[in-house]
Amino acid sequence: MARYQINLAYDGTHYQGFQKQARAVTVQGVFEDALRHLEWKGTSILAAGRTDTGVHASGQVVAFDLDWKHSPDALLAALNAHLPRDIAVQTATCARDDFHPRFDAVSRCYRYRIFCQAVRNPLLERYAWRVWTPVDQSQMNEASRALIGAHDFASFGSAPRRGGSTRRTVLGASWSQVCSSDSPVQLNFEISADAFLYHMVRSLVHLLVRIGQAELGVEAVWEHLSQPGVDVYQGLAPAQGLTLVSVRYPDPVGNGEMDNN
Amino acid sequence: MARYQINLAYDGTHYQGFQKQARAVTVQGVFEDALRHLEWKGTSILAAGRTDTGVHASGQVVAFDLDWKHSPDALLAALNAHLPRDIAVQTATCARDDFHPRFDAVSRCYRYRIFCQAVRNPLLERYAWRVWTPVDQSQMNEASRALIGAHDFASFGSAPRRGGSTRRTVLGASWSQVCSSDSPVQLNFEISADAFLYHMVRSLVHLLVRIGQAELGVEAVWEHLSQPGVDVYQGLAPAQGLTLVSVRYPDPVGNGEMDNN
Repeated sequence: MARYQINLAYDGTHYQGFQKQARAVTVQGVFEDALRHLEWKGTSILAAGRTDTGVHASGQVVAFDLDWKHSPDALLAALNAHLPRDIAVQTATCARDDFHPRFDAVSRCYRYRIFCQAVRNPLLERYAWRVWTPVDQSQMNEASRALIGAHDFASFGSAPRRGGSTRRTVLGASWSQVCSSDSPVQLNFEISADAFLYHMVRSLVHLLVRIGQAELGVEAVWEHLSQPGVDVYQGLAPAQGLTLVSVRYPDPVGNGEMDNN
Repeated sequence: MARYQINLAYDGTHYQGFQKQARAVTVQGVFEDALRHLEWKGTSILAAGRTDTGVHASGQVVAFDLDWKHSPDALLAALNAHLPRDIAVQTATCARDDFHPRFDAVSRCYRYRIFCQAVRNPLLERYAWRVWTPVDQSQMNEASRALIGAHDFASFGSAPRRGGSTRRTVLGASWSQVCSSDSPVQLNFEISADAFLYHMVRSLVHLLVRIGQAELGVEAVWEHLSQPGVDVYQGLAPAQGLTLVSVRYPDPVGNGEMDNN
């Protein structure tokens, strides 16, 4: 029996989120079904984060104990053979016996994609939020810089546990244009933090887009951060634009960090 | 009654191609159903091209006659209200009474996207073909340059009508990397020509990828072009990587061309 660390990618469109539920199709539920084909006898895998209904992942991290006599690459191939088209293992490695993808994580990175178009666009909307009127990228970047650092984000989400801390440290947050010869304009928001509150990225993106559309000024970010939990921000960007990109863990040598993706 | 020109985008995943069929869900069939909600009494719309099962479009062009009392923008909105999520009108304009989206077209542009990854990737595979081993982009571009000009492409597809000419003029053909911070590497192949044979782009892409993987040399393109219809190329890249991007029409002033997209 050994512990394995898996990088998992999925298209969340048809799942009721990551976390297992009794009467809903979830990524965790489908992944555990695949594991049982490999004689896994556990009750629950461990995961870095719980993505919401419709949210995607290119680098979710899960771990489990398995009695497996072949290589990690053979485990990857065996799992992918039992997983549906919209879920796929990207990497499989051996991990320490006590590795925990959530508690050991030092930071997470999410990406949120928007595009600016007046009419709907079937080729973009599966993985992005359509916004109109157009946004001012520099205003959104100025507002994003105000997020960086340690703040109480209670106005932008709730702690996983009732009464848990709503203080988080944002390590980076910026918008960049997706290089593409195609119109319309597409922008990616990348944000990394030690951890995130429930709904935090989608709540921030909604606010930043309104700032980009000049409905609100850049100072709106400061106002919500200075009145945590009182001045609760109500908007929420839709799930399909959000992707869990990667989770970072301490460097095994102990001197730094290591990106899982 | 007036003729309207519509730029149409669709995700072809769930359609048995563009062209109407008696017992299959097609883009044309669904579009005509939407038009009938606007009291359209015609029997068939006109279209620039027939895309295959699973092929996408960002700039298909269709035309029809309609007794419509409001603006073209109102027509766009009314049609999109009756179309499903995976089909959407991008632009609507008045056209000449005799405008024909196929016969008036002077060129078409298709894009084919590939990505290079050893394991499958749920977030890319809806709109791209996964190829492995990695490809050499410069070799594929050298081979693509050999396609440019007027050639008999009988080895790469068949004419729309039996006995029709298989000679076509390729105006441009090149591979470029999709700018993206994400791995894996994604490449776009853009090809424009006066017109295309049935299966021509997918057949060419399959050959070019094999050249990129060093399974064949660049001279393979010349060999197939010099023996049209005798040395028929058998491979076909899958449909989901292909998108009809745009159709060009003569400039109304008569001195040049105008891109529809």
